[in-house]
Amino acid sequence: MAGRRMAFSAILLNSIAPIPDGMWRHPRAANGYDFATPEYWEDIARTLERGGFDAVFLADLLHPHEVYAGSHEPTLRFGAQCPIHDPLMLVPIIARATRHLGIGVTVSTSAEYPYQLARRLSTLDHLTGGRVGWNVITSFNEGSFRALGIDQPPRDERYARADEFLDLCYQLWDSWQPDAIVEDRESGVYANPAKVSRVEHEGRYFRCDALFPVKPSPQRRPVIFQAGSSPEGREFAARHGEIIFAIQQWTPEMRAFDDDLRGRIAAAGRDPQAVKLIYQLQVVTGETEEAARAKLAELQSLVRVEGALTLLSGIVGYDFSRHAPGDPLTDVSATGVRAGLESILAASSRRDGGFTIADAARLYGLSSGSPLVVGSPSQVADQLEEFADEGGADGFNLLATDMPGSYRDFVDLVVPELRRRGRVRAHYAGSTLRENLAQEVAAFAG
Amino acid sequence: MAGRRMAFSAILLNSIAPIPDGMWRHPRAANGYDFATPEYWEDIARTLERGGFDAVFLADLLHPHEVYAGSHEPTLRFGAQCPIHDPLMLVPIIARATRHLGIGVTVSTSAEYPYQLARRLSTLDHLTGGRVGWNVITSFNEGSFRALGIDQPPRDERYARADEFLDLCYQLWDSWQPDAIVEDRESGVYANPAKVSRVEHEGRYFRCDALFPVKPSPQRRPVIFQAGSSPEGREFAARHGEIIFAIQQWTPEMRAFDDDLRGRIAAAGRDPQAVKLIYQLQVVTGETEEAARAKLAELQSLVRVEGALTLLSGIVGYDFSRHAPGDPLTDVSATGVRAGLESILAASSRRDGGFTIADAARLYGLSSGSPLVVGSPSQVADQLEEFADEGGADGFNLLATDMPGSYRDFVDLVVPELRRRGRVRAHYAGSTLRENLAQEVAAFAG
Repeated sequence: MAGRRMAFSAILLNSIAPIPDGMWRHPRAANGYDFATPEYWEDIARTLERGGFDAVFLADLLHPHEVYAGSHEPTLRFGAQCPIHDPLMLVPIIARATRHLGIGVTVSTSAEYPYQLARRLSTLDHLTGGRVGWNVITSFNEGSFRALGIDQPPRDERYARADEFLDLCYQLWDSWQPDAIVEDRESGVYANPAKVSRVEHEGRYFRCDALFPVKPSPQRRPVIFQAGSSPEGREFAARHGEIIFAIQQWTPEMRAFDDDLRGRIAAAGRDPQAVKLIYQLQVVTGETEEAARAKLAELQSLVRVEGALTLLSGIVGYDFSRHAPGDPLTDVSATGVRAGLESILAASSRRDGGFTIADAARLYGLSSGSPLVVGSPSQVADQLEEFADEGGADGFNLLATDMPGSYRDFVDLVVPELRRRGRVRAHYAGSTLRENLAQEVAAFAG
Repeated sequence: MAGRRMAFSAILLNSIAPIPDGMWRHPRAANGYDFATPEYWEDIARTLERGGFDAVFLADLLHPHEVYAGSHEPTLRFGAQCPIHDPLMLVPIIARATRHLGIGVTVSTSAEYPYQLARRLSTLDHLTGGRVGWNVITSFNEGSFRALGIDQPPRDERYARADEFLDLCYQLWDSWQPDAIVEDRESGVYANPAKVSRVEHEGRYFRCDALFPVKPSPQRRPVIFQAGSSPEGREFAARHGEIIFAIQQWTPEMRAFDDDLRGRIAAAGRDPQAVKLIYQLQVVTGETEEAARAKLAELQSLVRVEGALTLLSGIVGYDFSRHAPGDPLTDVSATGVRAGLESILAASSRRDGGFTIADAARLYGLSSGSPLVVGSPSQVADQLEEFADEGGADGFNLLATDMPGSYRDFVDLVVPELRRRGRVRAHYAGSTLRENLAQEVAAFAG
């Protein structure tokens, strides 16, 4: 049988560099590329579309890290995912530079009014021609709540709020019947009021009494992205997610996660095969294995132990400055996002003597706990095929290193190999993000 | 002396038609122009830039009108400024289609968290190359608050909240010293933490404890637009506004408003001449006076009494369906935006017998209470010069009728005449919106 198609997204922050530590220092990043300008995003988006990517995934961090050493100072000094700008404003920019690429944007249900956000996302669905996705987060870090001036609810309440937030958005998005708009210039009738339902919601967390003001958009609802790794996050993803992102280091762990998650999706009454499960990877490639290894060494030289620990501490919600770099890595109790740390702990447990804090930082600083796939185009393609065929991965969410070089490397070197193997689309068959995703699911089912 | 330069902005809604009633029915609007698409806005923006406009002014209405007949049904039926989409998402679109045009966007302080909005506006200031303006509103209509699920504060409290909102935004925008960014690739130091102040605000309405995450943007602060007409609104404008929008029907009333407002600005400790006072107008022009009058008749035929009363009721906050169309127009007690109504009442008082409700509706439906300037290019230019030289207007905020025709008419017919008279810039001398505005002020002072 021909291998099944893989979905690809590119995970980025609207920040001075991609997610790993120190990449703004890369010599290839020094060519006047400034993330604050539209040109930076237009160039990347066109590269991704040339490579048949399904979507760009704009991650976010509402407030900069400040857990490491209990301060934002290391964050500023290392440029540790800071400055970081709003990702929502990039959606129209990327939409105008591309014709097919999906655009998934992270917005926190803790920082918005449902009516206002539903209106914005529908406006974007129109402006993108039906290519918008919403990565739903509830905000894990206390700093975001202090910045917003609101009290941070515990995790279970954050997810309960997010559930209600989404249910209210669905009501708003579904409130216009498809034939509500008459637009009769002669009689002057624009819409038939009988075909538009008023939304009257009185819930535990939200109230809304509104006529939804946006006409039905190409997708009606944005494609829902979800990346929660906690049990609450997985349940939420099972109920709402259409593209679900995860981090696992090895194929058997992917398979186990896949079984767990598809079981939860079925239990939630949805079709487990209609959801795409996408694993995050860091790919470093070159014309040959040697070239790839040389690039890896250069990238590794950019990562600083303290810079990486600033990121890890902020994401996990635990201050790693309490430990010396030579101390052994042990599990910590923390309230933030644990997926990356757990993946690093799993890697540590497979190594004789385990990782030191510094080992963990160096690995995390480059790959955020995702598999680091290093090699020639055919070696990378082989590894991706293993993850897909044995691990059950529907696709991959690619981290970047230097910008825009690392995505160019992937698109120019690995994508042609994957296309030869029938793993990456030659062209986009649908017009919306959801249509393009469904065609990949259909290709799998067939 | 040569006439002083005039500033121009174009006031639009992200809606099926411009602000007047029924314009979506215009034959010139039937050429596949869809406000929900980027192409619509790109075309308009390029037209405005060709005409040397300072800015496009994206007005907003967070929730559709529902005061007339106590229902949203007339709003849907007439297409009375509904559908209406989010204006913020248009800013990046317009920025990419132009190089100089300022982009003023309306965002309500009642519907946002200060930190989140400050981050978004700074992100936009970067993406636009320093061309963003913020029209600060507090939201006057109850429907917006019901949609958001929050209780509407009284007007004085809304403005007190807005004051604190802006003060907090200023703190965030000013928190990075200009030389805070080091960006030393060798040492790996990105920013000097000693040159970035943490913002710690504990106010009456807002709390914020944050490191502002956006690097200093070209303008640092967006240009503040203000259009409040109530005494509270004028005081707020005097404290914060850089471009202030107003509605007055005649030259002496403009002069009186000008004196009042510049007095308030001086009392607030600011330079009254550093603020631009811009009056809203509806211009209908053609090659000749006859052509302009023929266009006017066509436009008038599109306005429906009930459609216009749906708008007027929603804006003013008073249900005009209580009156028969033939009843005389009288003042009403209402909590919404009164500027347009007061202007119509003033016009009514100058006519023998005064206006009926239907007369008022027909006038309001076309011009929203602003002066209707109809004539050949030189007649229009004469009237604008009178408003500027005798009324003290720094410029004009132009309503549209049919899209995109009415702005094309103005740019192709009136702008050349105004350029001959030295009233409209031949090119943009600055790079940011604030610089371009300052050059007009300087031209005036000189």
